[in-house]
Amino acid sequence: MPSLELTESAVDLTRTICDIPSVSGDETGLADAIFAAISGLPHLDVYRDGDTIVARTHLGRAQRVVIAGHIDTVPINDNVPTRDIVEDGTAYIWGRGTVDMKAGVAVQLKLAAELTDPRVDITWMWYDHEEVDADLNGLTRLARTRPDLFAGDFAILGEPSNGEVEGGCNGNLRAIIRTEGVRAHSARAWIGENAIHKAAPILERLAHYQPRDLEVEGLVYREGLNAVRIRGGVAGNVIPDLCEVEVNYRFAPSRDVAEATRHVRDVFDGFAVDIVDVAAGARPGLDAPLAREFLSAVGAEPRPKYGWTDVARFSALGVPAVNYGPGDPHLAHHDEERVPVAQIEAVEVGLRTWLLGL
Amino acid sequence: MPSLELTESAVDLTRTICDIPSVSGDETGLADAIFAAISGLPHLDVYRDGDTIVARTHLGRAQRVVIAGHIDTVPINDNVPTRDIVEDGTAYIWGRGTVDMKAGVAVQLKLAAELTDPRVDITWMWYDHEEVDADLNGLTRLARTRPDLFAGDFAILGEPSNGEVEGGCNGNLRAIIRTEGVRAHSARAWIGENAIHKAAPILERLAHYQPRDLEVEGLVYREGLNAVRIRGGVAGNVIPDLCEVEVNYRFAPSRDVAEATRHVRDVFDGFAVDIVDVAAGARPGLDAPLAREFLSAVGAEPRPKYGWTDVARFSALGVPAVNYGPGDPHLAHHDEERVPVAQIEAVEVGLRTWLLGL
Repeated sequence: MPSLELTESAVDLTRTICDIPSVSGDETGLADAIFAAISGLPHLDVYRDGDTIVARTHLGRAQRVVIAGHIDTVPINDNVPTRDIVEDGTAYIWGRGTVDMKAGVAVQLKLAAELTDPRVDITWMWYDHEEVDADLNGLTRLARTRPDLFAGDFAILGEPSNGEVEGGCNGNLRAIIRTEGVRAHSARAWIGENAIHKAAPILERLAHYQPRDLEVEGLVYREGLNAVRIRGGVAGNVIPDLCEVEVNYRFAPSRDVAEATRHVRDVFDGFAVDIVDVAAGARPGLDAPLAREFLSAVGAEPRPKYGWTDVARFSALGVPAVNYGPGDPHLAHHDEERVPVAQIEAVEVGLRTWLLGL
Repeated sequence: MPSLELTESAVDLTRTICDIPSVSGDETGLADAIFAAISGLPHLDVYRDGDTIVARTHLGRAQRVVIAGHIDTVPINDNVPTRDIVEDGTAYIWGRGTVDMKAGVAVQLKLAAELTDPRVDITWMWYDHEEVDADLNGLTRLARTRPDLFAGDFAILGEPSNGEVEGGCNGNLRAIIRTEGVRAHSARAWIGENAIHKAAPILERLAHYQPRDLEVEGLVYREGLNAVRIRGGVAGNVIPDLCEVEVNYRFAPSRDVAEATRHVRDVFDGFAVDIVDVAAGARPGLDAPLAREFLSAVGAEPRPKYGWTDVARFSALGVPAVNYGPGDPHLAHHDEERVPVAQIEAVEVGLRTWLLGL
């Protein structure tokens, strides 16, 4: 089993945990290492559920902050192990997970071990299956079995935000658009109906779709509608009777799930649309007292979060939540994912300063 | 092991062999049954190579005719076992393989056992893997190891031709058309490039493609260009970096392989095109003496064959070849594949009459 040394710098810890592959569904090795490193610490009460680990202080503080990060990544594409690179004079750690979001997790792990006497009680959460169906998300499971663990006055998700504070998040919907045809031998195609050819307007509408920008509480959220998968076909000599295009719609937090669903059905009017997964976004919520305090302590200008993150889960439970982590979110899931070393250090300092009330 | 009783009627034999599934790659059960039924017959010299079986008479006749049929089918789609149905007063056997081409094989098996004294020497061939890559075709393998077995003055493929004689065949080309993009998190799609969206013009061109009709030696061949498979995508939240559309081009026998390849590259100009499989068609060849004799004996008007068949293989070896079998080729690979009982009987009578010189 790989082991973690939490007295290492957050930068070294980032390298170490990125080099332990943990693609969604395969997080156990990393979860075991985190559990082993954390469970001996006397100031933390540790709970494990599958590959999700929760570590809490019980200092009797007036307020509790939840600080969370997922430990899974999207599939590796020749970008593990990590490498140290320099671009335009900036030092980066390059590789899968460096941005989304193991650098954030590394900072959290280091501070969880170090901060034995913070000014607020802290609930640390490291969880699995964030990059796949919401159903599989470790926090979804935890919310069913231990909803009490989500209690708090404020939550910080360590999702990449370039070391800025990103408020709220877009909602997230996935749907399958289907075309049907009639199979026939491809030598006599005119007898059948080609389901793949019928999908041409679906791709046309996607290619020409103009995403909207929507302002919510002063922050501008950018939407997006994309094909993420397509499949169809039976054999090399058969006219296909089915084609499925999976689309992903990211929608501003001012739209609810019903409105988002209606929009997708409108865009693909005339086609069979099956909604397979949908999660509401979260409004920024930056007027909460702890949120204002946090913003001023870390000296950051709030920005909108485009990607859906688990801030929406806390937001739905009435806990104001923000994203604050190292790494450019534009590079999340990118093959050239890389995190500036200086941002890891800045987020570490920002969190430590605020949590110690310095 | 299922067993075959070759004294049964060709109609009963059709039911029996259709009910032994033999999707390409899974022909061994049926090949074993054919081998067992044929290998005890004293007038036939039987050779087996994998799931291909060759049975020859050696009667010292002046001429030799090759009569061949493939024993594999395209994938089953809830259409095995067979059923007896009646439509508009016509009796059919319904189910996968009834048309393409187990009714033809049933007639051949019955006559192979029955005709101990035909007017020509006969080489019967039943072979595997016709419905997949030409590389895997049992006759491709046999042509490498035992080219002598293909010697003959005329060849008849039992491919479905509605009991008519179909001359020549279209050529067959498969190609992969690729689009590439850049992966990114789907919450920030504008950072990546969506390879599936880029495939929209490929499907548009296919949907609007107008296939040509080309006359060759008096027969009109109808061409076709179709998507047979499409695939793309990485995960539900990743902008895909690759989309592949597999297309199948059926081209008239007046075009050679180079011309067909050029045409496909022209249609998809601007896209990466990878030719994965190509087989030339065959000109009708109906002016050969045995071909004329056969046409007059079975009293059929020749028609063009649209689908690629192994007549092209014989044609390339200088052996004139035609398709002659029960079943409507329009229904080959169709989920409602069904063969008229009367056509099975008519082809059986036609072949027997000619082979006995009655």
